[in-house]
Amino acid sequence: MMPCEGGLQTVKGFSFSAIKAEIRYKDRLDFSLIVSDTLCNCAGVFTTNKIFAAPVALCRERTGNPIKGILINATNANACTGDEGYRNARNLTADAAKELGAGPESILMASTGIIGVQLPADTMRAAIPRLTGSLSVENAKLIPRAIMTTDTFPKECAASFTTSRGEFHIAGTAKGAGMIAPNMATLLAFMITDAPIAKPDLDAIFRRCIDKSLNAITIDGDMSTNDSAFLLSPASDSPLSDTEDLREFEAALLYVTEKLGELIVTDAEGATKLARITVTGAASEEDAKRAARAIAESMLVKTAMFGRDPNWGRIACAAGYSGADISEKKLTIRIDDETLFADGAPAAKNEANLMEILGRRSYTIHVDLGLGNGTSTYLTSDLSYDYVKINAEYST
Amino acid sequence: MMPCEGGLQTVKGFSFSAIKAEIRYKDRLDFSLIVSDTLCNCAGVFTTNKIFAAPVALCRERTGNPIKGILINATNANACTGDEGYRNARNLTADAAKELGAGPESILMASTGIIGVQLPADTMRAAIPRLTGSLSVENAKLIPRAIMTTDTFPKECAASFTTSRGEFHIAGTAKGAGMIAPNMATLLAFMITDAPIAKPDLDAIFRRCIDKSLNAITIDGDMSTNDSAFLLSPASDSPLSDTEDLREFEAALLYVTEKLGELIVTDAEGATKLARITVTGAASEEDAKRAARAIAESMLVKTAMFGRDPNWGRIACAAGYSGADISEKKLTIRIDDETLFADGAPAAKNEANLMEILGRRSYTIHVDLGLGNGTSTYLTSDLSYDYVKINAEYST
Repeated sequence: MMPCEGGLQTVKGFSFSAIKAEIRYKDRLDFSLIVSDTLCNCAGVFTTNKIFAAPVALCRERTGNPIKGILINATNANACTGDEGYRNARNLTADAAKELGAGPESILMASTGIIGVQLPADTMRAAIPRLTGSLSVENAKLIPRAIMTTDTFPKECAASFTTSRGEFHIAGTAKGAGMIAPNMATLLAFMITDAPIAKPDLDAIFRRCIDKSLNAITIDGDMSTNDSAFLLSPASDSPLSDTEDLREFEAALLYVTEKLGELIVTDAEGATKLARITVTGAASEEDAKRAARAIAESMLVKTAMFGRDPNWGRIACAAGYSGADISEKKLTIRIDDETLFADGAPAAKNEANLMEILGRRSYTIHVDLGLGNGTSTYLTSDLSYDYVKINAEYST
Repeated sequence: MMPCEGGLQTVKGFSFSAIKAEIRYKDRLDFSLIVSDTLCNCAGVFTTNKIFAAPVALCRERTGNPIKGILINATNANACTGDEGYRNARNLTADAAKELGAGPESILMASTGIIGVQLPADTMRAAIPRLTGSLSVENAKLIPRAIMTTDTFPKECAASFTTSRGEFHIAGTAKGAGMIAPNMATLLAFMITDAPIAKPDLDAIFRRCIDKSLNAITIDGDMSTNDSAFLLSPASDSPLSDTEDLREFEAALLYVTEKLGELIVTDAEGATKLARITVTGAASEEDAKRAARAIAESMLVKTAMFGRDPNWGRIACAAGYSGADISEKKLTIRIDDETLFADGAPAAKNEANLMEILGRRSYTIHVDLGLGNGTSTYLTSDLSYDYVKINAEYST
């Protein structure tokens, strides 16, 4: 596995377009399309929120189908929009399929933006020919920008890997940047590969990679109605099946999903810090996850990060209420190489070193529970004035 | 039951003192004492955090004892302080008991403030005679201020109630104002009554009242290491036992605990809004609680409140990920008298009325799930710039 320069255009066999359709704002790329030359197998992972958007309902029905492409809009989530919202998603994908000469159920849809407002369906349907008419490989570079909402920079990455049948590629793009919680977020992620993988392998490998990456990041603990991650792989009569080849594929995919997760947390709304919360020594894997997630979501930990405040008691406190087994006497807390709590008492600390660490853009908060072998890592951001500003002003 | 003017001094049979002991800062009331003329029964409810402070450990051992008084310090939580922290709490309460001529295990202790710093035990032990030497009824008015940390105003209230044996009183004081989550918070609450109640009745009634009040408020979802609520009632050979009398007592106590809860959320760190989250029509009581709590803790709901942003989709979203049974088609969302979502679709709304409501200091967010009879109410605050400011700068 090797990281590549570039983004979606790295993977051959796909074309792209993105246009300004005035879905909610003027003069903004907000409507886009990813199309495969051939029909694809698709793996999809979706929000577990019981209130889920119309496009999520649509995709859940369709990811088992041969897939031609994905229609994407930003600025409107098409969530809490009832039957009309679902009809709009169905009509829009049917229109796109018709223009592409593909089956009506071979197009998926993903939406992101405000909840509870109907899509301007007439405007969008009228824009479909413009979208399908401008497909090209070069337009790949527009997609990461066209799917953004409050993101401040476009996110994409790519990797190559070598198999017994030669070199293949995986590329992906994603958008954050608020409402990011474990088990997906207001996150949309689109990954494509030129490696032909059978649907059962694709599903299993994608799920494993997502659980270690996009499902282990948290910004504000809010799990959105629209979270969707997709992976398209060309359908083939002779998919990659050699164990070693699939292992290479999984390593490359994990690189792409982890990188996208890191980019999302780096661009968390208002974030000035990125912390890797690593819990070790938990009584179980489940306990390690509980503790890491509680620390990663604690507003007090996150505001202390923003303020460069060495208030590690808040870390111990969050671990304590996480539900994980924990014993104060066996607990160790470290930030990068500076130990703050060990052997049941505050550790003597090098203040200068600690302040230097807390000034860094990113660092690791390491909590060892001293009870077993469970480990887990979460990524989180700090909580800043700008997070409040961005979210207090979002819909108005 | 009748609310009373005044605070702790309303209840006869107790004396109070509060002094500046320079526990962490100069020129600040930080060390205080509540003493009963006679020995008391004590009900105590404590944090469920597995990392709990030394004074919590001490109180858990002692609340079954006859209790003479409670020693309280602000600015230092005496949490994550290991054996030394526990020894300090034991020595300080023993010193106070000696000065008062009481048994060494008849004094409780409560601490609030920064985690992970040892108490200045020598300074505090030297200050004990000054504390016990200045006990008076008039000093009751100092206690609500002496227990404050980031609170902006002192909190107390009182009520009277009439029984077959005449009139009695309950009074209480509490401090917030961050790290407030259901199942207690960085909250300390002290209630006293002149009504003699047997220990088993006192425990049961106190638990019921706390569950409906101080355990149903949330500011930032962080559950602290120090949360403690106490209720002292004079021990007696002839406690109140008439069912109607105990019902009056419970009504008055519920008034006091609910009022203290409301004062704490009103004074939530940086808060500009108070919202009552009322969930009805849930499939079960448990589901109602889940949904109410998820909405009350959602950072996106709380920032929207701060920004007066009518972004009700975030309310639906939080209910959706709460774990409660929910059906979009049966859901109704209302803020005060303005319906925002009903019959599976966004409701036509009176924008002017809605903006007027969102400008109020407090309002009710009413979510009906349309599935059953479960109901629950939580109190929550908004999330403002000042919350971030207060918590980013706390320990430095």
